Amino acid sequence: MRAFSASLERLIEQFQSLPGIGHKSAQRLAFHVLGLSEERARAFADAILDAKRSVCQCSICYNLADSMVCPICDNPERDTGMICVVSDPRDVAALERTHEYHGVYHVLHGVISPMNRIGPDDLRIKELVARVAKGGVREVIMATDPNTEGEATAMYVSRLLRPFDVKITRLAYGVPVGGHLEYADEITLLRALDGRREF
Amino acid sequence: MRAFSASLERLIEQFQSLPGIGHKSAQRLAFHVLGLSEERARAFADAILDAKRSVCQCSICYNLADSMVCPICDNPERDTGMICVVSDPRDVAALERTHEYHGVYHVLHGVISPMNRIGPDDLRIKELVARVAKGGVREVIMATDPNTEGEATAMYVSRLLRPFDVKITRLAYGVPVGGHLEYADEITLLRALDGRREF
Repeated sequence: MRAFSASLERLIEQFQSLPGIGHKSAQRLAFHVLGLSEERARAFADAILDAKRSVCQCSICYNLADSMVCPICDNPERDTGMICVVSDPRDVAALERTHEYHGVYHVLHGVISPMNRIGPDDLRIKELVARVAKGGVREVIMATDPNTEGEATAMYVSRLLRPFDVKITRLAYGVPVGGHLEYADEITLLRALDGRREF
Repeated sequence: MRAFSASLERLIEQFQSLPGIGHKSAQRLAFHVLGLSEERARAFADAILDAKRSVCQCSICYNLADSMVCPICDNPERDTGMICVVSDPRDVAALERTHEYHGVYHVLHGVISPMNRIGPDDLRIKELVARVAKGGVREVIMATDPNTEGEATAMYVSRLLRPFDVKITRLAYGVPVGGHLEYADEITLLRALDGRREF
């Protein structure tokens, strides 16, 4: 027995199918949408369809884009001699938020994970090698996640890039800024000690 | 400088405009939508538009409905002699989840709140009085929220219904089932003591 209208129930179900949204949140979101103006609700629906329709991968760095070339690769002020390798487009967004990185990116779209049957060929690794082989690249910064799979992927990729005349670096490990030392795990602390720098 | 495609950014913004959704959640949800099939994404967009278009209020109980009469009022097995008065359609859903209430509802769509300039005339109170005045109602259960405004609204409504030959009741107060006694506030405990029943 439904308590609400069928169309409202359907909207609640749709919200509930999203990751991390339980029934109560879904209900709250659906009621919020009901309270939107006709125009705002249409903008929301259109945003979903537009994103599905127009988002593709940049033909250079494989970041998400609306056209063949993403806004970062299309920006003449970015330093194309420096490529930061990440596993996910979200990592690009995170690094862009620092406003301090002026190079370009390369998005692998995943990490090597034998457990999930993801091998090097499932990622944009050969495209990265081709990019570096073309020349003009001074440095490749490996910025995959600091966990086992991210580490292994970075290792694998850096081995492939070794034949080229390019500096290969890795993001520094250490204690997160603004965190509490007491909550840092021992491996992070060990890495932070290893990487200590003079004042 | 945008990191993503414009259409993806727009979708993230749309999610972020929802209550309780921060930037990171919005990003997660937008990426999830990107990963949906064309068909699933369209179903989501349609659910938003459909709900906006077709949800209206039941002409009897003012619960949300797709037609003039909601599924509950339309159900001949429901006892129309018992009306449960709630402030919000979400409360109908909560009570329906008990699967034990077989009467009908009346949704006030708010509570009397001088602070927010909501008076009795802004709520579906006169509609309730008219419903009771028509006869055939044995009991009205006041199920507004157990807080000051809900309480005051229940009081006000019950006073208006006193002239009619109808039993007016209030949901029981007490400690919530499954909770811990030590976390219950003193007023709830007091009410639970007051309302104690023999085993």
